[in-house]
Amino acid sequence: MSPDLLLQPMTLRTIAHSDISEFSRKNLTSSAATVQFTLIHGLFNLYSIMNFTRLFCKLLLNTARPQTLCTRIQTIRLKSTLPHLSSVMMSTNLRILVDMDGVLADFEGHFLKRYQEKYPREPYINVADRHGFYLNEQYAKIKPELKDLVFSVYEEAGFFLDLPPIAGALETVKELDNMNDIDVFICTSPVQKYTHCVTEKFQWIDKYLGNDFVTRMVLTRDKTVVSGDLLIDDKPNITGAEKNPSWEHILFTTPPNSRIQSNPSPRRLNGWHDRDSLNRIIESKRKEKFVKIIECQN
Amino acid sequence: MSPDLLLQPMTLRTIAHSDISEFSRKNLTSSAATVQFTLIHGLFNLYSIMNFTRLFCKLLLNTARPQTLCTRIQTIRLKSTLPHLSSVMMSTNLRILVDMDGVLADFEGHFLKRYQEKYPREPYINVADRHGFYLNEQYAKIKPELKDLVFSVYEEAGFFLDLPPIAGALETVKELDNMNDIDVFICTSPVQKYTHCVTEKFQWIDKYLGNDFVTRMVLTRDKTVVSGDLLIDDKPNITGAEKNPSWEHILFTTPPNSRIQSNPSPRRLNGWHDRDSLNRIIESKRKEKFVKIIECQN
Repeated sequence: MSPDLLLQPMTLRTIAHSDISEFSRKNLTSSAATVQFTLIHGLFNLYSIMNFTRLFCKLLLNTARPQTLCTRIQTIRLKSTLPHLSSVMMSTNLRILVDMDGVLADFEGHFLKRYQEKYPREPYINVADRHGFYLNEQYAKIKPELKDLVFSVYEEAGFFLDLPPIAGALETVKELDNMNDIDVFICTSPVQKYTHCVTEKFQWIDKYLGNDFVTRMVLTRDKTVVSGDLLIDDKPNITGAEKNPSWEHILFTTPPNSRIQSNPSPRRLNGWHDRDSLNRIIESKRKEKFVKIIECQN
Repeated sequence: MSPDLLLQPMTLRTIAHSDISEFSRKNLTSSAATVQFTLIHGLFNLYSIMNFTRLFCKLLLNTARPQTLCTRIQTIRLKSTLPHLSSVMMSTNLRILVDMDGVLADFEGHFLKRYQEKYPREPYINVADRHGFYLNEQYAKIKPELKDLVFSVYEEAGFFLDLPPIAGALETVKELDNMNDIDVFICTSPVQKYTHCVTEKFQWIDKYLGNDFVTRMVLTRDKTVVSGDLLIDDKPNITGAEKNPSWEHILFTTPPNSRIQSNPSPRRLNGWHDRDSLNRIIESKRKEKFVKIIECQN
């Protein structure tokens, strides 16, 4: 196929169900851009490589029902040229917002350790027996005075800086951030008495993930006003001023939220080692974003 | 007019140019909702009052060319019922993000004062002679060693907490926030050496605007990922991971940015006493948001 063809406006409508075989295993190459349409076993992949250097988008339109997919594609009229579409995709990385306490940093485990050191004669709750998002509420049910003891533990200087990282968190976050089409942002809320907490949260990210991540930190009590594609957070219900946040909340499973059922219930990530779920979630967001971009071109 | 009529789907298309006289000075009232269509002197106002208690949206579709307005309205097909539209509007307040340094807090003035106290024998730059966003760059042009002296001033403990408020800032921000359809968020970036800065920014807001505003603080080096309708900021070019931020940048004029011309040039606010400009900007965003909401209903 002539390279010039790629620079002309194309309609994805042309890839109707009946045309699938024609596009199967066909690679179209030009000196300006390489666009591969590969249709294998009901999967439709659009890879677009600019400048022969960087695979800047791998957008998988994946479906178990190729019929549905094709009907969908048939309805999409792509008015722009593919190089233009490529440049739009290049500027729209997937943004993953990652919470700190309970997701990157082991708040619950460290709390229990410090609480037992500080108040060895007081009753305590094992992490596995924790339920409900707020520690102080469960402790207050044992006896009301424990509430203030709970606060005194995590309001102490050094508490947030000393939190140990959660298993697999740092590696996975760095790995995600190294992907060409993903930006990771740290999105975290300070506690009510913020004096030590805010600075230590910055120091923690600096220490464990480096200064590059410090420039991608967002510290706020209202995460609904932060825009992103995914928010990985262990808080079951995240509400705020924005009634329709741009992100999809992925509930990071921890003992306190493991039994919580919410409606509608968010998709879950059962720890950083649950890579299959994470990959599935990311792929689905890529697909969603790709469809949105194409629809916006109309 | 019967109250029931209001609960039926209505099309704004019906308000064509020829129909204007019919709608003129007509008030439609029901026990569930009061919706007023008032067309006076080329202004089209949609007021919607729910529960007879709160004027929850005052969305002004204002134009000097009624002809254009009517053509626009003619093209809008409003499929939803007005009560539904009202509830959508109620949940979509105008969100104004307000920067701190140079906008709420007098960074430049306080810097000069502290610099002169700390280094009385060193050359200095009067605030009126400042140009360019970064202080250290202009000082370094006098002599390179001054750069580190500049840092040493604002990296000192207490510097950010001691910043005096800018004239009119606190009153205006509180006034805006008291409006029914406006949410004010504080959106601020910490300096490179954040140790004192981050906590003191929280303390400053707590001290001057109160704890309610602390819950609406967003601390980040990348403001493009914060969603809002307006960002009032004195930094001339605000860039980041999000290439199409949801907010419109309003450049808050200060001596350092007064001569800066950027392309495209943002609308300016020449201080908090420039209420006419501020009101015009807010009205235009209300109108824009209203049009977007109606278009989204289609």
